[in-house]
Amino acid sequence: MQAALEYRLTRPILVDVSDADGADVLFEEALARGCDVVTANKKPLAGPRAAFEALRAAAGRAGRVLKAEATVGAGLPVVDTLEILLGTGDTVRAVQGCLSGTLGFVMSALEAGRPLSEAVAEAKAKGYTEPDPVADLSGADVARKAVILARWSGLAGPDDEPAVQLEGLVDASWAGLPWPELEGRLKTLDAEFEARRGAAEAAGEVWRYVAHVDPGEIRVGPARVAKDSPAGRLAGTENLVVFHSDRYNTIPLVVTGPGAGVEVTAMGVLGDILRVAAERRR
Amino acid sequence: MQAALEYRLTRPILVDVSDADGADVLFEEALARGCDVVTANKKPLAGPRAAFEALRAAAGRAGRVLKAEATVGAGLPVVDTLEILLGTGDTVRAVQGCLSGTLGFVMSALEAGRPLSEAVAEAKAKGYTEPDPVADLSGADVARKAVILARWSGLAGPDDEPAVQLEGLVDASWAGLPWPELEGRLKTLDAEFEARRGAAEAAGEVWRYVAHVDPGEIRVGPARVAKDSPAGRLAGTENLVVFHSDRYNTIPLVVTGPGAGVEVTAMGVLGDILRVAAERRR
Repeated sequence: MQAALEYRLTRPILVDVSDADGADVLFEEALARGCDVVTANKKPLAGPRAAFEALRAAAGRAGRVLKAEATVGAGLPVVDTLEILLGTGDTVRAVQGCLSGTLGFVMSALEAGRPLSEAVAEAKAKGYTEPDPVADLSGADVARKAVILARWSGLAGPDDEPAVQLEGLVDASWAGLPWPELEGRLKTLDAEFEARRGAAEAAGEVWRYVAHVDPGEIRVGPARVAKDSPAGRLAGTENLVVFHSDRYNTIPLVVTGPGAGVEVTAMGVLGDILRVAAERRR
Repeated sequence: MQAALEYRLTRPILVDVSDADGADVLFEEALARGCDVVTANKKPLAGPRAAFEALRAAAGRAGRVLKAEATVGAGLPVVDTLEILLGTGDTVRAVQGCLSGTLGFVMSALEAGRPLSEAVAEAKAKGYTEPDPVADLSGADVARKAVILARWSGLAGPDDEPAVQLEGLVDASWAGLPWPELEGRLKTLDAEFEARRGAAEAAGEVWRYVAHVDPGEIRVGPARVAKDSPAGRLAGTENLVVFHSDRYNTIPLVVTGPGAGVEVTAMGVLGDILRVAAERRR
């Protein structure tokens, strides 16, 4: 990357499809040197608020853009929808969503009565999870997406960004366990998850892994929702994002669809690149 | 308009928020003279295919853009989603939708057991219908939206565009009737619509006014759908657009939300203007 910045390219775009730590520093340098930045990497956008503000400021000073459609919902129109809402003068009041295809798959399997340990094993076998499934199960990835939504929607400002209230399906401290040991620990939770499922079902509800972004509050964790609600009707790896704004108030604007996978993530990245290219065509 | 074209403006954008006939000729001239064109007016995009192709060609020759987000779903990300799908190399396989807030309101009222004549009277009183409600009830407006979706998605090409198979709720020949006479005619249909509702309900279904855009076929009309389907769950003036593509195949990309109204339509137009402006910012 540092080497690439040394080249005298004509209006380069820095595209980050890694999940590397510390990319915010590189982004800032790239923007300052005249690159636009397109990222599927959530980490540089979801770290300390000051680092995010520094990125925005660097983009503003350089007259360059920072685009991030693929960070939430992969190719679904989520970040761009926020930009158009705000750009046309709307005020976003809340954003809710089921933002993890992996956890969507697991929650659907639990709903169908399968043990947690089995659901996670299958998600792992299908390639839906990170190499370490705890990265998904802890909710850390969804928490990053929620922070990005809070920042892009204006629901969290530089001086009033709440900490994420994060509840994982499992403890984040289980990260790094070899699979057989993790599977063993998951089995110790199977009965508890089955009991929770039964209690919800008796009330016409199901468990989903939900992110709520509200003014002054970002909550991420398992939640009971009505079976007959938009979140309750989701199946498998499907994502859901619900936008409430001054304009979309009694009936929200809702986007659903597959929110993970190589092709749709690539679409999110390439769509951003095309928008940047269009902005330069003139 | 002709007068405006005589001015020596710096990179003007022609914005059409009328529903005038014959705007395609003006659009073509405006594009040729270096205007970008943003339209909420469906007519110039949904007329004869040759006129649409002439517009596209004029835009291409002049290096200008023709944007139409507000023509389908008002501010919902519909036309732009098609552009991003195609622009990133996807192939659209089918688009379905409930594209009329007015007819959505009427179909919901029918579902609730209200007579057709009453449902239309209330829609008219609430300002949801065109001045002549037959413009909505005939399906002509939805047919135009379906044609725009077919053209923008690539499902209909210059040489293989099928005629719209259009079934209205009422006969288009009722257009222009004064309201008391139209209301009288609607009352003659009340019993038939109630019978249809009952038959659907017995099968767990509801009637919706649906547009289907498929390769070689564009169908617009009332259709029975499962109560528990995305279309069946719509309430009131809500719109729904379902995109099936090579990438979004087993699970489609779905956008729902209010698809009519002054504010959200203005958002669709202003969003297009902002995109054109962004393309010029550099």
